[in-house]
Amino acid sequence: MSEFSFSEHPHKRYNILTGEWVLVSPHRTKRPWQGKVEKPDLAQKPSYVEDCYLCPGNERAGGAVNPQYDSTFVFQNDFAALLEDTPVGTFEKGGLLKAQSESGVCKVVIFSPDHSLTLPLMEENDIKKVVDLWQNEYNELGAREDIGYVQIFENKGAVMGCSNPHPHGQIWAQRNVPELPARKTENMERYYAENGRSILSDYLDLELKEKERVIFKTDHFVALVPFWAVWPYETMIVSKRHIRHIGEMTEEEKADYAKIIKKMTTAFDNLFECSFPYSAGIHQSPTDGQEHEGWHFHMLFLPPLLRSASVKKFMVGYEMMANAQRDITAEYSANRLRELPTTHYKLGAQ
Amino acid sequence: MSEFSFSEHPHKRYNILTGEWVLVSPHRTKRPWQGKVEKPDLAQKPSYVEDCYLCPGNERAGGAVNPQYDSTFVFQNDFAALLEDTPVGTFEKGGLLKAQSESGVCKVVIFSPDHSLTLPLMEENDIKKVVDLWQNEYNELGAREDIGYVQIFENKGAVMGCSNPHPHGQIWAQRNVPELPARKTENMERYYAENGRSILSDYLDLELKEKERVIFKTDHFVALVPFWAVWPYETMIVSKRHIRHIGEMTEEEKADYAKIIKKMTTAFDNLFECSFPYSAGIHQSPTDGQEHEGWHFHMLFLPPLLRSASVKKFMVGYEMMANAQRDITAEYSANRLRELPTTHYKLGAQ
Ligand SMILES: O=P(O)(O)O[C@H]1O[C@H](CO)[C@@H](O)[C@H](O)[C@H]1O
Ligand SMILES: O=P(O)(O)O[C@H]1O[C@H](CO)[C@@H](O)[C@H](O)[C@H]1O
Repeated sequence: MSEFSFSEHPHKRYNILTGEWVLVSPHRTKRPWQGKVEKPDLAQKPSYVEDCYLCPGNERAGGAVNPQYDSTFVFQNDFAALLEDTPVGTFEKGGLLKAQSESGVCKVVIFSPDHSLTLPLMEENDIKKVVDLWQNEYNELGAREDIGYVQIFENKGAVMGCSNPHPHGQIWAQRNVPELPARKTENMERYYAENGRSILSDYLDLELKEKERVIFKTDHFVALVPFWAVWPYETMIVSKRHIRHIGEMTEEEKADYAKIIKKMTTAFDNLFECSFPYSAGIHQSPTDGQEHEGWHFHMLFLPPLLRSASVKKFMVGYEMMANAQRDITAEYSANRLRELPTTHYKLGAQ
Repeated sequence: MSEFSFSEHPHKRYNILTGEWVLVSPHRTKRPWQGKVEKPDLAQKPSYVEDCYLCPGNERAGGAVNPQYDSTFVFQNDFAALLEDTPVGTFEKGGLLKAQSESGVCKVVIFSPDHSLTLPLMEENDIKKVVDLWQNEYNELGAREDIGYVQIFENKGAVMGCSNPHPHGQIWAQRNVPELPARKTENMERYYAENGRSILSDYLDLELKEKERVIFKTDHFVALVPFWAVWPYETMIVSKRHIRHIGEMTEEEKADYAKIIKKMTTAFDNLFECSFPYSAGIHQSPTDGQEHEGWHFHMLFLPPLLRSASVKKFMVGYEMMANAQRDITAEYSANRLRELPTTHYKLGAQ
């Protein structure tokens, strides 16, 4: 019998969705830090900023002028990484150099006309409108012959490479299924073929029994720190019902999804009392014309902060060369997130 | 026939060592940047710093006192992510939660007693001593029953999570082979079994013919931007001779390796005239007792800077959720690095 304990001993954990291991070093947070310190985002932002490319009525860097939008607003990225009119082609030399052209669409999704409103500060009703827009875009882009996958995501905070502070997300939709969703497709569909149930349904049942990694639930969703989390406060929102993609969400589920997004992002901001940086994204079934019965909708938050509003986890040297690594356990993180006040620290004393 | 062109159209390229694709968007660097700006490292550092944990004679955070070392110095990391006395054990629940204990050793390798000397500023002779130390450590750690893999790496610069500015690298050695080296093992050994030659020997021949991704060569090594590079100025140093690991390097090769390290890191510093941040690491055969005939020694530099000393590439949202992505081509980067002065900008006017 093994005497090894999750909370004390270095170990690795397996990610059932990607097939990769993460190294966990529970004892490691006490090391001194003479390294980089981030400037936490504590600024009180104005509702409108004259030279912001994303505020209503302003001119964008590409020359277009934003309408006086009063809710969400979506437009094609003026500096898109993917272009629609890319000629189809492949390249190959000696089996050693291999390339293939890729086409697609990049869009920017502004959450609110108000420059100061991040998701946790928005009303649930207004977050619901963002969810509606995501659903629309997934359905419309996904229906196209030349789009096999739709990636909806948000980079929040300068430390996460957000190139404009007006709260917004992005959608990159492309012909081929990218690396990570392709790997998840494989694993989810193998499990479904073997078990007749979605792997995330079974995983969710187990976590709801175990409890220690669950942060909270709403009527239709569960927020938890996955067993195999890589980032310090990595969080997954999973739909209780086995739906493959956002297109299958009912009105009631969408309202509930908006609710859990508000709860989760509020907990994040409250953790270190700052506007909590992260990259978030939705993983859902590819739109490549296949059934994808095994796919189970989920959203991931990958936040870098580790010790405080100003010290983040760096995925560098060892992590880039060898293996993902984390310094606290998923159980510890879930526990911290679970115990936070449910009202946003900025909205507390109203 | 395809009309797609590497230098104009978005495309993806295949990494023959990892089996992964990278998305390349050659046209994308013109987008505006209202995002994060890094503080370039331009400081003239002193040779000795009183409260540096790594300078000779100083007390470290863990309480130990550094000797008055006058060349390289290696010691066990006081805050190691891997520990030697971890009990062996596995954990499993419903096939959904899987974990395994991991043991190992983490060491810190100080390059020079001089707090101000990064690799490009050191003498070739002194870099050779670092190479000697790496060879020793690989041989000694690798010979141990409980060490299956030795990762040698350096995080350079605050932006790369370096927690102490005194120039140093690290070695993490562990029982199991981590994710990325394991994937490379698979691909290199499959190729060797099928072709009777190392994949990097064949790749090197091809690149030396094509020339456009080669930065420079010395007697025994080639520096190039790999066809499938992810980071803007990602660079690979490959040994011309098919050696599996640093243990097989001759004295002459080690001196030549020191030479190309100096050349390469000098080019990096000269690119944006700053102390160029990166994570670097050596990929070589695991020490798990197997032959690994297909393994071919190489070193990788993964530097984040993209446009200038202060604007880096962020691997965030799309990259974390979907696929690695870059904004310039490998050919463009190799060309820029090739054309730089060969004398360090700080050592120029002597
Ligand atoms: O070991 P250090 O320098 O304290 O820490 C640095 O390198 C490690 C190995 O890549 C990483 O795990 C840390 O996130 C990084 O800050
Ligand atoms: O599209 P933006 O906001 O200009 O850019 C940001 O998000 C992109 C998608 O994750 C990344 O490729 C960029 O590195 C990042 O800075």
